[in-house]
Amino acid sequence: MGDTYASFTNTGLGRTVVRRLGLPDPPRLRRHDPGAPLAPGPVLLGAAPGGRLGCPVRDLLDRAGTDVRGAIAGGTRHGALIFDATGILDSAGLRALYDFFHPAARSVLGSGRVVVLGTAPELCGPAREATAQRALEGLVRSIGKEFGRGVTAQLVYVAPGGEEAIESTLRFLLSGRSAYVSGQVIRVGAGPATAPADWDRPLAGKAALVTGAARGIGAATARVLARDGAEVIALDVPAAGDALADVANEVRGRALQLDLTAPDSGERLAAHLTGGVDVVVHNAGITRDKTIARMDAARWDSVLDVNLAGPERINDVLVERGLIGDGGRIVGVASIAGIAGNRGQTNYATAKAGLIGLVQSCAPDLAGRGITINAVAPGFIETAMTARMPVLLREAGRRMNSMAQGGLPIDVAETIAWLASPGSGTVTGTVVRVCGQSLVGA
Amino acid sequence: MGDTYASFTNTGLGRTVVRRLGLPDPPRLRRHDPGAPLAPGPVLLGAAPGGRLGCPVRDLLDRAGTDVRGAIAGGTRHGALIFDATGILDSAGLRALYDFFHPAARSVLGSGRVVVLGTAPELCGPAREATAQRALEGLVRSIGKEFGRGVTAQLVYVAPGGEEAIESTLRFLLSGRSAYVSGQVIRVGAGPATAPADWDRPLAGKAALVTGAARGIGAATARVLARDGAEVIALDVPAAGDALADVANEVRGRALQLDLTAPDSGERLAAHLTGGVDVVVHNAGITRDKTIARMDAARWDSVLDVNLAGPERINDVLVERGLIGDGGRIVGVASIAGIAGNRGQTNYATAKAGLIGLVQSCAPDLAGRGITINAVAPGFIETAMTARMPVLLREAGRRMNSMAQGGLPIDVAETIAWLASPGSGTVTGTVVRVCGQSLVGA
Repeated sequence: MGDTYASFTNTGLGRTVVRRLGLPDPPRLRRHDPGAPLAPGPVLLGAAPGGRLGCPVRDLLDRAGTDVRGAIAGGTRHGALIFDATGILDSAGLRALYDFFHPAARSVLGSGRVVVLGTAPELCGPAREATAQRALEGLVRSIGKEFGRGVTAQLVYVAPGGEEAIESTLRFLLSGRSAYVSGQVIRVGAGPATAPADWDRPLAGKAALVTGAARGIGAATARVLARDGAEVIALDVPAAGDALADVANEVRGRALQLDLTAPDSGERLAAHLTGGVDVVVHNAGITRDKTIARMDAARWDSVLDVNLAGPERINDVLVERGLIGDGGRIVGVASIAGIAGNRGQTNYATAKAGLIGLVQSCAPDLAGRGITINAVAPGFIETAMTARMPVLLREAGRRMNSMAQGGLPIDVAETIAWLASPGSGTVTGTVVRVCGQSLVGA
Repeated sequence: MGDTYASFTNTGLGRTVVRRLGLPDPPRLRRHDPGAPLAPGPVLLGAAPGGRLGCPVRDLLDRAGTDVRGAIAGGTRHGALIFDATGILDSAGLRALYDFFHPAARSVLGSGRVVVLGTAPELCGPAREATAQRALEGLVRSIGKEFGRGVTAQLVYVAPGGEEAIESTLRFLLSGRSAYVSGQVIRVGAGPATAPADWDRPLAGKAALVTGAARGIGAATARVLARDGAEVIALDVPAAGDALADVANEVRGRALQLDLTAPDSGERLAAHLTGGVDVVVHNAGITRDKTIARMDAARWDSVLDVNLAGPERINDVLVERGLIGDGGRIVGVASIAGIAGNRGQTNYATAKAGLIGLVQSCAPDLAGRGITINAVAPGFIETAMTARMPVLLREAGRRMNSMAQGGLPIDVAETIAWLASPGSGTVTGTVVRVCGQSLVGA
């Protein structure tokens, strides 16, 4: 399941061939390295006049030991460009974006980061401010497509009163953990932040349930949550028993063999989780592809049941019985197919769109209980499933994104871990794509 | 600016070549024909039990002289499949979609229509209902990608109390006017409908201002609004004077030469519109492409000024002076670049994303004055601009959508005319793509 093309283009000969022929040039992406600083170089921090986030961001970057610069010094290359755009109140004020990004664009290091901070349009008073803040999205998505070399770009809308709550999100976005996340719009709500005692082990003392944990994205999630300190309960169907046991052993967690489509699965799950859980990752999923004209009812029913009704049942059991409570984190694994639809996947896309609906509709009620619920939506991820795709389709999926390559299961897992962190308590009801800013969307 | 490939594939020899080589097969799309029935064949109408839209939809289709069927009769081919999904209250209920679409999928005629009617998730009470209603989007977008042959698929969320207001939208979606609109989610709000006296001339007696009217989408819009009965004021810069005069003469309207970036343009516009206007189409737009690293400030400023500040200024003048009032319709022309971002278009994408923000943020206040504001977002449209694109880029843009071809300026114009209709008074704050369900999105 390796990307042999990307391996080749990262050799000396490969680089020459790519340059001469003008071929796609997938960079080697910076990924999480426990000892490494947050960004691969100094962080250039700018702001439109009147912004409210410059000071809190500077403070948190200082605390994290980051080298923060307020101006471009000749020849300095930056690990990240952060711009506080909350001071932009109308369309004329958007000029501040050009004034910051035009001279700084070429200074960004490979796998560097661009983060624009704004106020969500729906939280702006005047329509002119809402219009200008909404415009930021066009800039950020264009920069994501323009900068290349593994540089990611995100727009983070921080609610008034959420200034102290952005640390978890900003750390994630600057770090190698967000290697394959780009072109996203993330909302950080108001409220106090619960900073973990140790940012390298934010899940210490937490219990995390991961469904579909025997393989692929689920197994990677079990590993990353365990690395971040969680005690992992790895769940999968009995047929995946051996692989599941291997994962559970590797992460020093517990294996739980359970078919979530069985009528008594809720009861059995509850019986296994008597101590409760802090984190639930709904990763278990199946595909049964056919056009709807050729699809039998069993394909429709099973895909809807596993991918959508399953997470609904688990949430109900856990929430109603108090097995997940204040500080709880629920993360669903959606899909680009659930956003954009896909030929031959009416069942899967319906289920995954429903999962997005579940996240959006349950967030307000769960917020009252101190629980967040979010979804990640993977794009082209290098797994056993994508390795079996026809070569042309696979190459198109791999290259048609701003990273010119597929993501790895760990990229999805890192994104889940950020949403699962105690520090992400004001991020809820959102869907974050892990797709390298795939061209494909809705 | 013709699509010679599509012309070729619609010949006898072309069809053979396409079939033998497995090439993209762009169908000839059904477009508006004054004498033709709404749909190209009988309409199959289905519903999940408990739906609230079956009866009003059946009534309006009957009034429109449409042949409505309640069940599949062997061998009947349908011009449209309409499914009322408002009765679906949870994920188990989604099975009704399969039960309707599985047997009906193959019965849809070329350039036929699929319309699913639902309740917007944010208007659903229980989270389970909101989840299921959100899931509809995955089905519709998949069907749009699956059915081919010029068949479009849309999801229309009808607010409770909006049952009588859907006629304008449903007529548009069934007709050839919506030839290049697919995969869209449209919200029809609550409220009474103002049916035009004559559905073929819904804009009779209305005055419509179209900016950038000398060419392309603007000229097509002037023609379509005039065809629908409007008295058109065609506005463009003085440099486009001859072309503008031609368009104005053709539609028996008035030409108005005005540079909207001039400081006194607001005053001058108001002086010309003393009688007021009913419809305003913000179509005037420019591109000045460069990566942000290479872009000079003039390129940034002019694109932001024309594409975003211009519409803001015009709206202000018209609304504050009461030159547009109750029953008014404002339509902006956005762009896929404003949704997904684009390399080399930080300025344009920022402006167009801002235009989307303008529509969304002004809608509530304008609704209080009886005015709607919406945007259309064209994808790949065959114009003089796209004719100048490099051939490979142009072919990719043309084929990477569910219609396997570029749209025509008239497709955008028809969509604008639907939003401008008196019957569309409860559709506001929305962005409708005219992109043939382009693969590209956010």
